[in-house]
Amino acid sequence: MSEETGGNAIDPNTMSIIVTKGSLDWAYPPFILSTTAAAMGLDVTMFFTFYGLPLLLKKMDLKVTPLGNAAMKMPMMGGHMVMPNIVAAIPGVDAMASKMMKNLIKKNGVASIEELRDLAVEADVRMIGCQMTMDLFDYQKDEMIDGIEVGGAATYIEVATKSHINLFI
Amino acid sequence: MSEETGGNAIDPNTMSIIVTKGSLDWAYPPFILSTTAAAMGLDVTMFFTFYGLPLLLKKMDLKVTPLGNAAMKMPMMGGHMVMPNIVAAIPGVDAMASKMMKNLIKKNGVASIEELRDLAVEADVRMIGCQMTMDLFDYQKDEMIDGIEVGGAATYIEVATKSHINLFI
Amino acid sequence: MSEETGGNAIDPNTMSIIVTKGSLDWAYPPFILSTTAAAMGLDVTMFFTFYGLPLLLKKMDLKVTPLGNAAMKMPMMGGHMVMPNIVAAIPGVDAMASKMMKNLIKKNGVASIEELRDLAVEADVRMIGCQMTMDLFDYQKDEMIDGIEVGGAATYIEVATKSHINLFI
Repeated sequence: MSEETGGNAIDPNTMSIIVTKGSLDWAYPPFILSTTAAAMGLDVTMFFTFYGLPLLLKKMDLKVTPLGNAAMKMPMMGGHMVMPNIVAAIPGVDAMASKMMKNLIKKNGVASIEELRDLAVEADVRMIGCQMTMDLFDYQKDEMIDGIEVGGAATYIEVATKSHINLFI
Repeated sequence: MSEETGGNAIDPNTMSIIVTKGSLDWAYPPFILSTTAAAMGLDVTMFFTFYGLPLLLKKMDLKVTPLGNAAMKMPMMGGHMVMPNIVAAIPGVDAMASKMMKNLIKKNGVASIEELRDLAVEADVRMIGCQMTMDLFDYQKDEMIDGIEVGGAATYIEVATKSHINLFI
Repeated sequence: MSEETGGNAIDPNTMSIIVTKGSLDWAYPPFILSTTAAAMGLDVTMFFTFYGLPLLLKKMDLKVTPLGNAAMKMPMMGGHMVMPNIVAAIPGVDAMASKMMKNLIKKNGVASIEELRDLAVEADVRMIGCQMTMDLFDYQKDEMIDGIEVGGAATYIEVATKSHINLFI
């Protein structure tokens, strides 16, 4: 597509999203935006990296918890500290977070992250897992959902030069 | 404007910002960028969603506090955990944050968020509150400042396809 | 370049990044993206502001720590709370974070932030420090690495109107 981008004929109906956060709350914006855009006919690419990579795992473990990033194995997740259990264990914190989630589901019938991801797959959203992050955190491609690609920062940059909307989430 | 965006005639002097964080510190970047851009003649749209929605409330309650997101009612705010009071109550934390804020105001005469928001309104920055977030957190339109619109992710995507600069903050 | 941007001839091989976070983990995305893009021939501008400004300091003090933003002097850093020592001192937290870092270096030979920054300088990435942030936090230009510029939000907006990819990190 170098002919296309060499000029200025970039299609405004194209979007890329760098997904860097994997907590339950911050997983929503990229999937809501990508599925909405795809439903409107945009070509969408999601690049999952850093703490956002686990969102590509077959078995997601997103918790309704204030622990920042339940999806990641590491002590520092999503740019937020994972609280030592001594703090997280204070009564009421998880209960309040669960209440928020129940409120969310009951009132709006909002889809789960798994459902939104399925929607994105069905809508042919292109999903790329970051090779470097996979190496760093010992993730294997066969742990990831089918149909994803694996690539590096150069792959993202190439996508972004051809996309009109480019977001870092 | 579909004629305009159907081709490649997107005006570079257009900007959209998704505002997702509502703490005192993270409220500054979107308002500084939007008011500066508007003053330079750009058409600016701000889409307030998630933890950023409370920045549209008539009565903002932004605190100089390390509690992450003082503006939101919920236990998990702005992507950051709200510390249980046992931690936040440790002497010196609020005092240091207040000192930072005083330093900020004294030295630079930096405007408050309320003042920056007024500036944005005066400069005809288009402000859209996220319908889904309003439903989730039980916010009513009459709690919000006058002149805002309410819309969903599709509204944002439509704006972004017609804006040159698109930021997620 | 107003002739260029007055029309619609914006070069897709141009990128700007607003760098707002200064912790060890969040310092990686902007430098990896900027050095990769520069290596691919893109014109790249980085605008360092808020908690990201210290990444321009000659003497960076990025720590492998869960304290959010070790690089900044202030109690609230990188949008994340700096934990009171009572929490951070809980045994095992720093050890686990250090283990992550060792894993990172050993396995991938990933460059340090200092090395990536050197690469960016060599690749002629344009680096701008935010004047307002420098004033607020009492940073002097001679504390910063050579070759940077100092500018405000208007400087950034001007760059962004001329850049195809615009990210807020």
